[in-house]
Amino acid sequence: MNAVQICSERIGALAPSGYRAGAAAAHVRGDGDRARLDVAILASEVPASAAGVFTRNRLKAAPVVISQLTLRRQRPVRAVVVNSGNANACTGPGGFRDALRMCSLTAAALELEPSEVLVCSTGVIGRSMPMERIAGGISDAAALGDRTGEMLAQAMLTTDTRMKHAASRFAHDGVVCTVGGVAKGAGMIHPDMATLLCLLTTDVAATPETLQGVLRDAVDDSLNCMTVDGDTSPNDTVLLLANGAAGGAQCAPGSGLHAALREAVRDVCDDLAEQLVADAEGSQRYFLVSVTGAADDAEARLAARAVAGSSLVKTAVHGADPNWGRIVAAVGRSGAAFTLDRCSVSIGGHTVLHNGIADNTALDDVRSALRAPRVDVDLTLGDGPGSAHCWGCELSADYVHINADYTT
Amino acid sequence: MNAVQICSERIGALAPSGYRAGAAAAHVRGDGDRARLDVAILASEVPASAAGVFTRNRLKAAPVVISQLTLRRQRPVRAVVVNSGNANACTGPGGFRDALRMCSLTAAALELEPSEVLVCSTGVIGRSMPMERIAGGISDAAALGDRTGEMLAQAMLTTDTRMKHAASRFAHDGVVCTVGGVAKGAGMIHPDMATLLCLLTTDVAATPETLQGVLRDAVDDSLNCMTVDGDTSPNDTVLLLANGAAGGAQCAPGSGLHAALREAVRDVCDDLAEQLVADAEGSQRYFLVSVTGAADDAEARLAARAVAGSSLVKTAVHGADPNWGRIVAAVGRSGAAFTLDRCSVSIGGHTVLHNGIADNTALDDVRSALRAPRVDVDLTLGDGPGSAHCWGCELSADYVHINADYTT
Repeated sequence: MNAVQICSERIGALAPSGYRAGAAAAHVRGDGDRARLDVAILASEVPASAAGVFTRNRLKAAPVVISQLTLRRQRPVRAVVVNSGNANACTGPGGFRDALRMCSLTAAALELEPSEVLVCSTGVIGRSMPMERIAGGISDAAALGDRTGEMLAQAMLTTDTRMKHAASRFAHDGVVCTVGGVAKGAGMIHPDMATLLCLLTTDVAATPETLQGVLRDAVDDSLNCMTVDGDTSPNDTVLLLANGAAGGAQCAPGSGLHAALREAVRDVCDDLAEQLVADAEGSQRYFLVSVTGAADDAEARLAARAVAGSSLVKTAVHGADPNWGRIVAAVGRSGAAFTLDRCSVSIGGHTVLHNGIADNTALDDVRSALRAPRVDVDLTLGDGPGSAHCWGCELSADYVHINADYTT
Repeated sequence: MNAVQICSERIGALAPSGYRAGAAAAHVRGDGDRARLDVAILASEVPASAAGVFTRNRLKAAPVVISQLTLRRQRPVRAVVVNSGNANACTGPGGFRDALRMCSLTAAALELEPSEVLVCSTGVIGRSMPMERIAGGISDAAALGDRTGEMLAQAMLTTDTRMKHAASRFAHDGVVCTVGGVAKGAGMIHPDMATLLCLLTTDVAATPETLQGVLRDAVDDSLNCMTVDGDTSPNDTVLLLANGAAGGAQCAPGSGLHAALREAVRDVCDDLAEQLVADAEGSQRYFLVSVTGAADDAEARLAARAVAGSSLVKTAVHGADPNWGRIVAAVGRSGAAFTLDRCSVSIGGHTVLHNGIADNTALDDVRSALRAPRVDVDLTLGDGPGSAHCWGCELSADYVHINADYTT
């Protein structure tokens, strides 16, 4: 975890200055726990620049399309409304109407324009939004506070077992600047882009264009380097708001402030990525695949993703089974170029393949390493300059149980 | 199942004339059941043309490389030696020596040249071959019979719960011709190519070149249209031998015999493909994804494979959960072009999405359909001419248990 945990009641997306949030239990799913928070609003006290990265799935949920259109205007925004329990995807023209209505209800409650409100949804696909309950939730959530980062984080969750939040702080020219964020997993997660909702905030001032570059780079190196189950959702959304409330200069590309902001956003995204994979559906154990020596970074990424996503590697990790041949087989089908006699593999620091020659002397140590909550898998494909990493998680019977019975 | 089941004691690869087989329990794995057959020989009584399709995994097991070199000579072959329990992959230079030694031991026992023997292995990756035990197995298996198709089918199995065999018979110009085959699954199965061992035989006469075309086409439409877990192995091998023992004319490209042979080989491969997916690791339920209306067949194939391979679709099938949104989300990430308002989905014949509009009225019927051993999932992406299919299977807790503890 790279990001500094800031000891404060203002956690996650509320760590930077000038943000408030509210959440409500609107019973969006219509079953289960009526007390569960499932509608939330994140708001900036002043107009904020905004950037977004969205699902590359061709099936895009209505709120994704609406938020993309809003961001395309490159105008300041003031709030994000989010719900869990229903994805508002595959819901036809009515779904777009409902997503727009979430924006206008939020705007009305906060005395804003609907075009100043972004919208995110997560949950079951193919069900109409229960707009009456959601309207009630928005009304309740509009009672904003500045110690409510935890409620915001809670309201986004679906099958997650715990909330995810992170923040990072730096000083630039005597001004203390903060980046914070909240995220939700926990399944349907795969690169391009990592499937989840993630709301990031900063009190730095930046144009939407600068902010978009900062966000794109940070996501590529963090949230896009993890896989839970190879599936991606129609709802993936990462938003970054910048409201300038820290009071410093505008962040100009190439400046020291720009570099510091990039690093802080990346740190927060890195931290959230590890929290997400650590809480992957049905998983008690996660692993980091690091690839070096590939022809280039793109090939290294192919290899890292194939290994992290392999069902057979994931079940081997689950069983603490040192069946490292599956790792090499996954590299073999990844499309990355390699010759076996330059290929080395270590698990938990113990070499099992060195320049293509099996070394099964340390299998007991590997078995022990595989019982730790986090496992490091290091792969060398050759002596090229390419490197990449990808987070993965075990595949357990619990994953199956969670997902065999999600709608019913 | 398209292939005719021929009522005979000569099953599978021994259904065509002029083939014999033998098998032995060589205790290749060195643990577990000592009585389990794990080394086998399939032999033709006369020299046979041979064709092969192999793994596209860049990690190729030693026997794959050796058999590919043998086939490249386009010379007649007489036998195939096969073992389960050890893949002879990631075994360094010693692995190639061992694969060649399996050919020469088989040749010596049957009074052939080593170059007339093809070799296949399946099992754990990264372990040296126990050549002393394998040599004993080859010696025992060389006692060939013509009622031993079942022993051959048994000796190839790893985590399979039952043997797979099929045969098809046709008459051409008054000559009865037969195609037969045996195969093993049951995990590490994904298209390009379907991961398994499969030995096919026919008593038609054909050149290696003609045979290769027949095999390639048949595999593309059958064994390459199934996925169990998205992984592929270094050992995938499908071989087709043609010994001319039926006594008919040489199979010339474009002839009626050629068309009949193509159809029979495809039927046998289709039949084996369904048997393989029906016995997928930990799976009691399998499904056929049929895609129509795509821009072209390649796009249809992308969509069919993404749906059949989706962890979330597979767990939904396992839970008989009519969560059809996951099907559309998998199409969305497949790369296949589609617009939602032309997209329709039915499960077990019950429409759940029609031209992009959700229809949740039949969810109880869908739930019932999902409880059958075989489920049909039909997808229309638009009004293009492209179509494809892909077999898939449920993802169960049993799959996890089987694969969490395979080497140990």
